[in-house]
This record gives sequence, C-alpha cells and structure tokens, in this order.
Amino acid sequence: MKVRLSKPEILDGLKKGQLTTLSQMITLAESSRPDDRLLTNEILSELMPKTGNSLRLGITGSPGVGKSSFINKLGQHILSRGFKLAVLAIDPSSLDSKGSIMGDKTRMSELLSKDGIYVRPSPAGKTLGGLASKTREAMLLCEAAGFDYIIIETVGVGQSEVAVKNMVDFLLLLLPPSGGDEIQGIKKGIVESADGIAITKADGDSLKSAKVAQAEYAKALQILKHSDEKWNLPIKTSSAVEDHGFVEILELIESSIKKQKADNSFTKRRNHQLISWMHDEIKTRLLESFYTNKEIKVELKRLEGQIQTKQISPIEAAKMLLSINLS
Amino acid sequence: MKVRLSKPEILDGLKKGQLTTLSQMITLAESSRPDDRLLTNEILSELMPKTGNSLRLGITGSPGVGKSSFINKLGQHILSRGFKLAVLAIDPSSLDSKGSIMGDKTRMSELLSKDGIYVRPSPAGKTLGGLASKTREAMLLCEAAGFDYIIIETVGVGQSEVAVKNMVDFLLLLLPPSGGDEIQGIKKGIVESADGIAITKADGDSLKSAKVAQAEYAKALQILKHSDEKWNLPIKTSSAVEDHGFVEILELIESSIKKQKADNSFTKRRNHQLISWMHDEIKTRLLESFYTNKEIKVELKRLEGQIQTKQISPIEAAKMLLSINLS
Repeated sequence: MKVRLSKPEILDGLKKGQLTTLSQMITLAESSRPDDRLLTNEILSELMPKTGNSLRLGITGSPGVGKSSFINKLGQHILSRGFKLAVLAIDPSSLDSKGSIMGDKTRMSELLSKDGIYVRPSPAGKTLGGLASKTREAMLLCEAAGFDYIIIETVGVGQSEVAVKNMVDFLLLLLPPSGGDEIQGIKKGIVESADGIAITKADGDSLKSAKVAQAEYAKALQILKHSDEKWNLPIKTSSAVEDHGFVEILELIESSIKKQKADNSFTKRRNHQLISWMHDEIKTRLLESFYTNKEIKVELKRLEGQIQTKQISPIEAAKMLLSINLS
Repeated sequence: MKVRLSKPEILDGLKKGQLTTLSQMITLAESSRPDDRLLTNEILSELMPKTGNSLRLGITGSPGVGKSSFINKLGQHILSRGFKLAVLAIDPSSLDSKGSIMGDKTRMSELLSKDGIYVRPSPAGKTLGGLASKTREAMLLCEAAGFDYIIIETVGVGQSEVAVKNMVDFLLLLLPPSGGDEIQGIKKGIVESADGIAITKADGDSLKSAKVAQAEYAKALQILKHSDEKWNLPIKTSSAVEDHGFVEILELIESSIKKQKADNSFTKRRNHQLISWMHDEIKTRLLESFYTNKEIKVELKRLEGQIQTKQISPIEAAKMLLSINLS
C-alpha cells in the first residue's frame, strides 16, 4: 500500500462507499504486520454496528462446474434487483499458487462492466484459516461500505465449504450436469451443509443429462432424508449460456432467508458464526504469539536440526518447545 | 476399544505384523483421551526407528474421478509385485458426515479379497489438521507393522492435498477424461504439488476424450513450465475397467523415487515432512491446552453470551480470553 490512510479517512471513505478506500482497507486487513493488524481490529470493532445488513450467499462447487459463468449471470440478476453486489473468494488452491491457468476474469467480464459491483480475488495466505478470516473481514468491510448482497465463492469439497458455511446465510452447491458416477462423489457432509443445489450447464447437448442428474440427486437425497425428516434440499437447474434458472434460484434464496427469519434460525445462525469467528481469532493469535516468541524461535532452529539428524522425534521436539511457551 | 492392550503387547503385536493389534493401535491413536494420547506418543517415539521404510504414495482427485476403482486395480498390481499394501484415507468431508452416500467398499472389493492388504477409512475428526495428523500416525504404525507400500487417498482440491503432500514420496493427481472446460479447473498450485497425473476411464466411449484431455493438459502444463524450466509433470492414461496403464504408472512412481534418492531430494523431502509434523503437533497441543484451561472454559461461556447479545465483538472476546491464557 503506497498511501497509508488514517483511521478517520478510512471510516469516512467507507461511509461514503468509496471503492478505492474499500480496496485499500481490505489490503490493510490482509497485511500481517502487527501495527496493520492492530489498526484493522480497531476499525472492525468500530464498524461492527454498521455490518450484518447484507444477504450473504456462499457458492461452492468443484473446478470445471462453471462457477464463474454462473456468478457472471446470477450477479447481473442481483444487480437488476437494485442491490449493490460484492463478490469475494476463498480459494484454498491459492495457498501456494499464483492463480489459475486461465483467469476467471474473462468469464465474469459482463458482470464486471456493470455499476454497483465489486470483485475481490482470494487473498494470499498461508493457511485456509487465515484465508477464511481475511475473507470474513473483507465481507464486513464491504457491508460497512454499503454493499447489500455478498457472494463468497469457494472451490472444491471439504474444509473450505465448512469455512464458507460459517459466514453465509445460504450456501449454494453447484453440481455438473452429469449423474451416475458423479453421485458417489456427493458426500453426505457436503450436501448437508448446503442450503440448495443448482445444476449448471442445463442447455444444448447437456440439457437431458442435467435433467437426469437432477432426478438422480433428488433420489439420492431422498435416501439421506430418512434419517432427518425435517431436512429438505431444493435442486434447481441453470444455464449461463441461455440465461435461465437464475430468477428461480434467487427466489429460492430469498424465500429461504424469509423462512429463517420467521423461525428465528437466521439470528441463531449468525450468532453461531460470530462465535466461530472468535474461535478462529483465538487460533490465529495463539499460533502467532508462539511463533514470535524469541526464545522459541532460537530453540526451534536447533531442534529442526536435531529432527533432521534423527536425534529427536517431531513429537518430542514439539513437547520441548511447548514447555518453553508455558514457562 | 473393548480390550485395552498394554504397551509391550502392542509393540509385540506390531512387530509380528498382527492386523488386529494394528487396528486396535490405530484406534488408540485416534482417541482424544489424554491417557490414550500419552501412550500413543510413547509408542510412536519408540517405533520411530522402525518406520520410514515404505514407499508412501498419495492419490488425490475430485469426487467422481474414479479413485476407488483406480486404487482397486493399482493396489492389485502393487500386491503382485510382492509388497504389503496399506490404504489410508484423509477425507475432509468426513468432518461432519457419517460417510458417503454410496460406500467405496464395493469398488474396492477385488482388492479387499487379496492377502497382504490393509484398508483403513478416514478417522472421524473435528479439523483437517486433526484428520491429517491421525492419518500420518496410522501410516507410521502400518510401517512398523511391516507394510512396505502405503497409499494415502484424499478427496478434492486444496488443503487436504497440501496435507497429503506433506506425508508422501509421490503425489498422483487423478483427472477425468474430459478436457476443455475442465482445464480451467486445474489451479497452478494443485498441479505444482503433484508429482504425476493419471487420467482415469480411458476406455470405451471415453478413450478418445481421455487422449484429447492428455494432450490438452500437456499443453496447459507447457505454458506453466516456462516459469520453471526444470519442472516436468508426466501425464499417463489408465482404465480400471480394461486394467491398463497401471504398470506404466507404477514404473513412473518407482523411477521418480529412484531419481529422488539419487539427487538426495528424497531425504530432503522426508526431513521437511518431519518438521511439518512437529508444527502440526505444536498447533494441536497449543489449542488443546488453551481449551482445557478451567478459567478459560468459564469465561468462554460468559463471553459467548455477550457476543450473542452484541455487547462485545468476537475480536474483543478473543483478546480477553487470550489475556487469561498469558496470565
């Protein structure tokens, strides 16, 4: 960051919805410098009352399922309803990468040319936990800057979905228009954490298989449902090429939020998310204070050498370092 | 665990390669009880000299790519070369799941009926870190019990691959026999952490698209290669149905290990893995000692209430709890 803004400048810029201030502030939040961290925490605590008013939508799916094309279209429908939309990404593969082979930007070019849109790629990060907490902070900052619809996009199965689930009001799982073999891939846990499923590429030659997939997934979910009678997971089809399915999907999301608010599960879910935010923060700070301890730093170097010459086991080395931390 | 074995009984049983002892010991290692943990650490430290002699192979790929069928065939080729094979899994989706919709067992039935094979599904766990460290312990125990070929299987993209990469000698990435759109899904980071690629289902109607995919992936990798001239990632095709490609894949793995041993990168890689094991252990223990602190437990409950009533922000709550930990 070339220009370092002051706290009042940042608060004022966000209040006015200035995108340059928002970008600079997110960059500040992504910094690992202790003074940047301190300032970020102060600003976030101050902004808390101005956050929480957006609709937070998570979108997840395997590589190749067509997430960018999907968001390109869905985003335009969101904008046309008068919302200001921010798209953020948690991409665990960016942990040791400089980006994907083909950029996603081209698939979102239509959306990017509109007004009221803000897109922020995945921050660089050493751990998924770090990535996720930086994405959460970016989300809150976008809310403070007046964005009222946030999409958090994530790749793949497993951990990153759990992370997204922990910050959104609705998690949409994208699945490809192929059934059969793919079905075995739907793990119970992933489907259970989703609030809805959209099958992509339901057009042209794939239309038929998309419909078959929809029926097969519904059948598979029926089997799972027996163990939890209340549970119901809607499955929609969509086509980014033919621009259909998106209105239905937005209606599905909105009616789910309405229902959540009516039965109070909305507040419960958001409270649960605040608490898991606290735990993420604890984890990050605990590790930070351990690894910045000078005595530990010195001893760590020495023990790493001993591990490599097989004089000591990793478990024993960890035990010795932890005893320094406690003393 | 019904019968609790003593330490000498466990050490003796593992030495004799008894599978029941191995299973009981892995169950013990998966336990979160402090006394079980203590005993596990003692046993692991004692067994360390007996570990490290297997070939450690990681296999990763998205759901539906055909991992189980692939391992079913590859495993049989490994057994026929006279190795004892253990197959372990790190499945991040098992974090809040009771298993997949369809069991993988049926796809591995041929392999399971052979001698010299041991298969252990993913342990239950609260975090990917926990899952990964338990899988690493299971691997070492299998080695101590005389298994000389270990396959660690994992689903999906991102974090779990990094975890597997941190414990194997060779990471094989399985990709589906479809190119085009899928290509955008190969993130640089994932491809970079792999040591080789195998395209699955190269048979029947898919044979042609598998060959096209092989060429497309090769082209995409060529683009990436420019930034790192030394880097080379072999791509093979395979068919579990027609049982071809597996001999070539095993030869690829073995020649890579031979090369790693010749240029000393094998030892470097294993040392690096021991050190990341130490860091995993530190992380686990740090969090454990924080959350089992009685004063913190009490205060945590109180602050969770305050977070829910918006009296305090998650960041402030974390700060207060951390100050107890330091006092």
